[in-house]
Amino acid sequence: MEEILDKKVAFTELQCSKNLSATEDALYVLGGKWTLRVMIALLSGHTRFNDLQRTLKGISARVLSGELKDLEINGLVKRNVDADQKPVVVEYIPTEYSKTLKDIISTLADWGMKHKKKITDQE
Amino acid sequence: MEEILDKKVAFTELQCSKNLSATEDALYVLGGKWTLRVMIALLSGHTRFNDLQRTLKGISARVLSGELKDLEINGLVKRNVDADQKPVVVEYIPTEYSKTLKDIISTLADWGMKHKKKITDQE
Repeated sequence: MEEILDKKVAFTELQCSKNLSATEDALYVLGGKWTLRVMIALLSGHTRFNDLQRTLKGISARVLSGELKDLEINGLVKRNVDADQKPVVVEYIPTEYSKTLKDIISTLADWGMKHKKKITDQE
Repeated sequence: MEEILDKKVAFTELQCSKNLSATEDALYVLGGKWTLRVMIALLSGHTRFNDLQRTLKGISARVLSGELKDLEINGLVKRNVDADQKPVVVEYIPTEYSKTLKDIISTLADWGMKHKKKITDQE
């Protein structure tokens, strides 16, 4: 007798199209190669350009600068210029709103850790 | 008087480097343009190649085929060939393990929905 496949699905058809379009919106903002990594560094207290570039090994100044501009447009980071100090101090401060990314980062990091273990154990 | 910046960080330095490397591992597997979308469609019960391609508007057959192969290597999908039927029926079944992606998809979709609302409300 043929084995009957378990047809129970994780998402319904309606959830499928909702998930597809909402995930697309999220990945449009966060799906860049560096975007979430820049946010992790910012949320960990790295606020100066050079410090960010040092923490994110391998990112070029041009790319980092573009990422920071995009994050500012999306309300996730605020560029703070302190002109009272000499030389002028520029800091990139994660906004209150950017804390909403904590869940995404933790969920992804958690999965990445478990997946690496799974793949390593197989070998 | 100068405003004192809230130096409270969302992640500590140790969490920062752990998050960076674990998120990197996760994005290495899931960060492709189509990867999570293919998984959403699979987890919603789309198991045939043509059905998947119809659901994921815009994906080419070559890219979909590559995505499915990568997902199989990562233990997230199983290619099931039913040779008893004519023509032979090929199905792509999400594995039990792939259910671990549900959290990631829900968290991302949730954020995407809220972020779209926030950006739309601003305009």
